[in-house]
Amino acid sequence: MLKRYLLTPGPTPVPPEVLLAAAEPVIHHRAPRFTEILTEVVAGLKYVYQTTNDVLIFASSGTGAMESAVVNLVAPGDAVLVASCGNFGERWVKLNKTWGAAITLLDFDWGTRVDPAQIAAALQANSKIKAVFVQFSETSTGVVNDIRAIGEIVGATDAVLVVDAISGLGATDLPTDEWGVDVCVAGSQKALMIPPGLAYVAVSPKAWKLVESNPTPRFYFDWVAARKKMTGDSAQTPYTPAVSLMVAQNKAIEMIREEGLANVFARHRVLGRACKEGVKALGLELFGPDDPEANSVTAVKVPAGIDGGKIGKIARDEYGVWLAGGQGKLKGQIFRFGHCGYFGAFDIIVGLSCVEMVLAELGHPVKWGASVGAAEQVLMKSEVKL
Amino acid sequence: MLKRYLLTPGPTPVPPEVLLAAAEPVIHHRAPRFTEILTEVVAGLKYVYQTTNDVLIFASSGTGAMESAVVNLVAPGDAVLVASCGNFGERWVKLNKTWGAAITLLDFDWGTRVDPAQIAAALQANSKIKAVFVQFSETSTGVVNDIRAIGEIVGATDAVLVVDAISGLGATDLPTDEWGVDVCVAGSQKALMIPPGLAYVAVSPKAWKLVESNPTPRFYFDWVAARKKMTGDSAQTPYTPAVSLMVAQNKAIEMIREEGLANVFARHRVLGRACKEGVKALGLELFGPDDPEANSVTAVKVPAGIDGGKIGKIARDEYGVWLAGGQGKLKGQIFRFGHCGYFGAFDIIVGLSCVEMVLAELGHPVKWGASVGAAEQVLMKSEVKL
Repeated sequence: MLKRYLLTPGPTPVPPEVLLAAAEPVIHHRAPRFTEILTEVVAGLKYVYQTTNDVLIFASSGTGAMESAVVNLVAPGDAVLVASCGNFGERWVKLNKTWGAAITLLDFDWGTRVDPAQIAAALQANSKIKAVFVQFSETSTGVVNDIRAIGEIVGATDAVLVVDAISGLGATDLPTDEWGVDVCVAGSQKALMIPPGLAYVAVSPKAWKLVESNPTPRFYFDWVAARKKMTGDSAQTPYTPAVSLMVAQNKAIEMIREEGLANVFARHRVLGRACKEGVKALGLELFGPDDPEANSVTAVKVPAGIDGGKIGKIARDEYGVWLAGGQGKLKGQIFRFGHCGYFGAFDIIVGLSCVEMVLAELGHPVKWGASVGAAEQVLMKSEVKL
Repeated sequence: MLKRYLLTPGPTPVPPEVLLAAAEPVIHHRAPRFTEILTEVVAGLKYVYQTTNDVLIFASSGTGAMESAVVNLVAPGDAVLVASCGNFGERWVKLNKTWGAAITLLDFDWGTRVDPAQIAAALQANSKIKAVFVQFSETSTGVVNDIRAIGEIVGATDAVLVVDAISGLGATDLPTDEWGVDVCVAGSQKALMIPPGLAYVAVSPKAWKLVESNPTPRFYFDWVAARKKMTGDSAQTPYTPAVSLMVAQNKAIEMIREEGLANVFARHRVLGRACKEGVKALGLELFGPDDPEANSVTAVKVPAGIDGGKIGKIARDEYGVWLAGGQGKLKGQIFRFGHCGYFGAFDIIVGLSCVEMVLAELGHPVKWGASVGAAEQVLMKSEVKL
């Protein structure tokens, strides 16, 4: 027996009661009960998004919903701005390239936040920019961008703000409407606490104007068709939905509502802080800013002289603990703890304890229990249940 | 308590052991165990497809995989042939229109099969046709087309044959390679016995040639990217897969392998026959040909004077039985029994018995037990376990 612990930023652990909801007998999607579930899930997502905008649901990975944003908003030749600071920022670039956008790229060092002032300058330099693409939580580095500031800047222009909040929504406060996020992309397998396979977009009236006049061909990911079918008293999805995942999402949202969004954010804040303090107490260096609001992922530099690839492998194969490695150009240079979604105090303890043992095995000097002790001191002071 | 019976052609009932497999703790998709599962699922799908072609997996509805066929094969302006005989044939038309194909449409009456001779004539009349789109089992009518004959015709030309086998694969014999199906689309929620959310394509070398030179933009559904990532010793998916559904599919394929494909087809043949004989014994008229190989769906004409919409509603609300109604222009005119996938003898009995009671309630003269009795005489002679 090797007991398993999934401590990655997606997929994330799913509560057993949610997994069992997904295991309920399959129901048909052209029937009143499914309409009820869909309506409840959409309402629940609006609660998590803190939005009154339309929320659409697709059976796809998060990348599918990201592509849906590009094909619904951008026509070939349209000017767009991508502010990238990591692997998923590069995905916005690739998607916009695929669809023929004229891209202005603000390329920030991985591990830093994008600079809102540079976005303002770029928008001022080119008034034709129709959409600004950015990440909320950049999963590859753990960085959380200042969407409030960016929203204020973009909101003063004709451009729409498109935010990939796949690993951030439901972990860190992101009031979609208040901060002026026109399109907010999310995925089921992060803080929304179900297995991967559903993806979400919240779409503002300002964004709908672009969508409705956009000639780019699309079918499966067409937002107009999705809105038409998914709203009203007999709401359905245009094509067969992933019903079991919808049932699971409904159950997970019930749990999020029960905890309360403010408590959810507070819990993530404590977990993120505990993880970071643990890492520092072990003498390791955080990758990226020590940000109290970056609470989906903690990225850590691999200590000099250690083979980064081995950390995740030993953790997984010998200790049953899944950590995440570096992506893209960070491969082998960092490792990452995920703590967005169904995570509590002892997930952080398990992750840190595992890293202590793995580093010791790799010959790195370890002060036994140091990271765990530092985390404990954060965790025990928590004002919310963990 | 109202006990529920899902007797629709998709979603279909999922075996409890498969649902429980989907409820196992979520695993990470960038790790050896997922590679094993993916490799097993691909091998299992090749078994069901009876193919040595590449099989690709997407987190999407079947419609997503249908669209993937169009965007990967068809460039704007390309000549294509669509042979349609139902609602899903029309979907091929819509998808090809969306992507700018020059469509030759052979539009057959709903409830009839497409005529291979007319496909041959159309291909002869226009040698520029690059792809022929058709359904195997047209879910909206229950009709199963003669793919063997169509494959022979298309195989003699430069065009590729694209078959939507979403509700037919795994229910009725469809030897992909032997019959020359270049692209075969399938979905998880029919005879493959898991909840909706995964979709599959099998792609022949002849089709790959078109794909590789096709400039149509695509990202999420790009087959080249999918093939690159999904093959080899460390096979993964390009984007986060629906891991729980993959685990479920692996379990369901294990069950299909255990039963054996020949027995699976034989079981469907008996169930389809039993359902059809039951319908006829009740004095109802089958919609479409009384085809011994059309075993995914039995479509039935609503008797004169009966409100077709009420049959499904009463069955569902009063008896807990989900039947399917008519789609598109057949709305209210037919109702449909699904029997593809996890169906046994008594699912047919339940469906027929329910229809007897519903029709009686609606004032239609019913010879009590007649349909059930007729089905029993088919079922008890079965040479395979049901």
